[in-house]
Amino acid sequence: MNTADLGLPVAVPSTALFTDQYELTMLQAALQSGTADRRSVFEVFTRRLPEGRRYGVVAGTGRVLDAVENFRFDETILGFLRERGILDEPTLQWLSDYRFRGDIWGYPEGEVYFPGSPVMRVEGTFAEAVLLETVILSILNHDSAVAAAASRMAVAAGERPLMEMGARRTHELSAVAAARAAYVGGFHCTSDLAAGFRYHIPTVGTSAHAFTLLHDTERDAFTAQVDTLGSGTTLLVDTFDVATAVRTAVEVAGPGLGAVRIDSGDLLLIAHRVRQQLDDLGAGKTKIVVTSDLDEYAIASLAAAPVDAYGVGTQLVTGSGHPTCSMVYKLVARADSDAPGAPLRPVAKKSMGAKSSAGGRKWAARRLDADGVAEAEVVGTGPVPEELAGRQLLVPLVRGGEVVAREPLEDARDRHIAARAGLPLSATQLSRGEPVLPTEHA
Amino acid sequence: MNTADLGLPVAVPSTALFTDQYELTMLQAALQSGTADRRSVFEVFTRRLPEGRRYGVVAGTGRVLDAVENFRFDETILGFLRERGILDEPTLQWLSDYRFRGDIWGYPEGEVYFPGSPVMRVEGTFAEAVLLETVILSILNHDSAVAAAASRMAVAAGERPLMEMGARRTHELSAVAAARAAYVGGFHCTSDLAAGFRYHIPTVGTSAHAFTLLHDTERDAFTAQVDTLGSGTTLLVDTFDVATAVRTAVEVAGPGLGAVRIDSGDLLLIAHRVRQQLDDLGAGKTKIVVTSDLDEYAIASLAAAPVDAYGVGTQLVTGSGHPTCSMVYKLVARADSDAPGAPLRPVAKKSMGAKSSAGGRKWAARRLDADGVAEAEVVGTGPVPEELAGRQLLVPLVRGGEVVAREPLEDARDRHIAARAGLPLSATQLSRGEPVLPTEHA
Repeated sequence: MNTADLGLPVAVPSTALFTDQYELTMLQAALQSGTADRRSVFEVFTRRLPEGRRYGVVAGTGRVLDAVENFRFDETILGFLRERGILDEPTLQWLSDYRFRGDIWGYPEGEVYFPGSPVMRVEGTFAEAVLLETVILSILNHDSAVAAAASRMAVAAGERPLMEMGARRTHELSAVAAARAAYVGGFHCTSDLAAGFRYHIPTVGTSAHAFTLLHDTERDAFTAQVDTLGSGTTLLVDTFDVATAVRTAVEVAGPGLGAVRIDSGDLLLIAHRVRQQLDDLGAGKTKIVVTSDLDEYAIASLAAAPVDAYGVGTQLVTGSGHPTCSMVYKLVARADSDAPGAPLRPVAKKSMGAKSSAGGRKWAARRLDADGVAEAEVVGTGPVPEELAGRQLLVPLVRGGEVVAREPLEDARDRHIAARAGLPLSATQLSRGEPVLPTEHA
Repeated sequence: MNTADLGLPVAVPSTALFTDQYELTMLQAALQSGTADRRSVFEVFTRRLPEGRRYGVVAGTGRVLDAVENFRFDETILGFLRERGILDEPTLQWLSDYRFRGDIWGYPEGEVYFPGSPVMRVEGTFAEAVLLETVILSILNHDSAVAAAASRMAVAAGERPLMEMGARRTHELSAVAAARAAYVGGFHCTSDLAAGFRYHIPTVGTSAHAFTLLHDTERDAFTAQVDTLGSGTTLLVDTFDVATAVRTAVEVAGPGLGAVRIDSGDLLLIAHRVRQQLDDLGAGKTKIVVTSDLDEYAIASLAAAPVDAYGVGTQLVTGSGHPTCSMVYKLVARADSDAPGAPLRPVAKKSMGAKSSAGGRKWAARRLDADGVAEAEVVGTGPVPEELAGRQLLVPLVRGGEVVAREPLEDARDRHIAARAGLPLSATQLSRGEPVLPTEHA
């Protein structure tokens, strides 16, 4: 896939500047000290899940692959770096020829993860791998945070559809990625047109209070909407008085009215009243859509209410209290020299416990109990035990610089459902708790 | 400014799809019902500040102006909408000719705001103004959230410089906007190269643990960095043992070493020890930079520590607990017909108190007490009282579709410092409290 295929309104000609300056100055220092070509292994992992969360959800993998492919330093970018005086000429020269030629492995998108899970592993020379740190973390930390919130909301919603409507509550391009991550996590559609355009996610829309207020009467507004969008549309019924609006809505659209949306008030109470009213009016198939600052707890609290779909905004795109993950990108092994075949030596930061990490290139597998339910996330640096060989979690994503794991977004979405279903039942409790699987170091 | 000037790695050819689908279907319904050309006034405001916050900070205004100018429906976008079957042909035809031709007023960027402050006002036909809702809210809600956190951190940091280092903790393009908003809020520089490229914000960088671990010894790493970046560089001293690293750092770089960075552990304790050690080694001018999950409270707690600069990541780009603002875009007045000169009628949602809002096209002014300190945010729909005429907050940003208020980012930054300084002293308390100014409705 080249840049042009990324889709216009969200295209980024190069991802190379989504990078902290120190990645480039470290490159320059390594080039000068002769260590730049040492074979290196970086791993992405988190030391902890957000407080109280039972599992994490890997999302953004597909976007990482796009970012790696489009990580190039063209003349404009090199000119900027030269002008700023950040780098010397040999380094700029090196960058002009840069493209990632190494290997990337990772948990496939939609998979669940736990503290210590090596969700991505980047292998190559130090120089080529260190440059990718910032953009890889940006994508995985953002998208996985949204997907984790989406997954909890999907559990709470059960069979009822979830609509992503958070564009206005986050950066306009975060919104596109958030809609994508929400889809991976179990949402069904989005209001964000750019996400529909770029990722082919189904798009939906209802109507705003402004549309009702634009018209001389609520009836005029409903009539205008039904005339052009058909009776299957969703009418917003809480601009003035809900009961009046519902009656007007059915009068205007007939009993085939698609849905009504409630965006304020006590949703539980109002949903029951509106359902009763719709049924009394013969609109038994008209659905009820609720929006209004929903999160997974509010969704769960409406489980027994006659609600047919949920629209979720703020709390989804901000990760329901946890807008970012704490994934880090750490050098875990490197060769002692740039001689071909030089063995890898595990390395790790040692000082001050909390930020220490385990060295060595890792494998990961999910061990099942006798009933086929996951019972542990096993992470190791030695040989993979025979009984876990078929349960390994890391798959090849990039080999020799070529992306080998492009997949439809639906695959990631399906994978997440399967992965979550393989966890112990307590994974889907919304209450705060420990990670549902322990991480064992083999 | 045309799209090309937006700067490559963050250019977006059109902003028109950063839009909720319902904006377009409402347009279609209004076109068909004959209400699309009614003159309309939309206002952006928030009903509340994030809990405990004393003031909000307007940020993103400059990005809104870019977004409005580049909000066009080209053939690619129209083709997508046509293919999706979202809109009818007359609406697509209307969009093909769209550009915003109305007026936008707003609080200038960097200004502070309070509940009810009309931070932006968009005037035009319903059709042209409703389309801008999503992208305007995306930008203001995101950027203002980051700027508010930045402002609190700037207060806590006093005269010490603040470095924005959060790119890896947020979406890669949010990161660029976050660096910009942080600069408006009082930060001095960023690690994000794309923000340096696009917005000319000064960029900085230090070094990562990976760079030390790449080398055979810490001394080798420090030597490599100093050899290529000079002794004025910042050396990271907490990979192994801090005291050893500081000694090695000064041995390698000499007493002219620029700075050392501490990224873990008890920063207060370690900063004191490192300062003492540096002074003992004759490196009295070597600065101490601290990073490691800082927020405004952690920064404040280090006020008495010998720290020279702060690097802030996660908590900045996630708004320090409040990653979005709750700004909404509401129709507050509209004409009864599309006849030229038809008078504006105030409109407002009425049902269920919490989401009600005040109708009418508003002015806003900040009233001062006898000492020249702000004492109230006054918002009204009638004539502006004479004593407040010179204190009005809304300025013209767009007139007849033309941007009239482009300004250097430094102006917004300076304006924020001045605006905050004009508030009562309690504005800069970090503790939770009420908004520092009451909002009065005149």
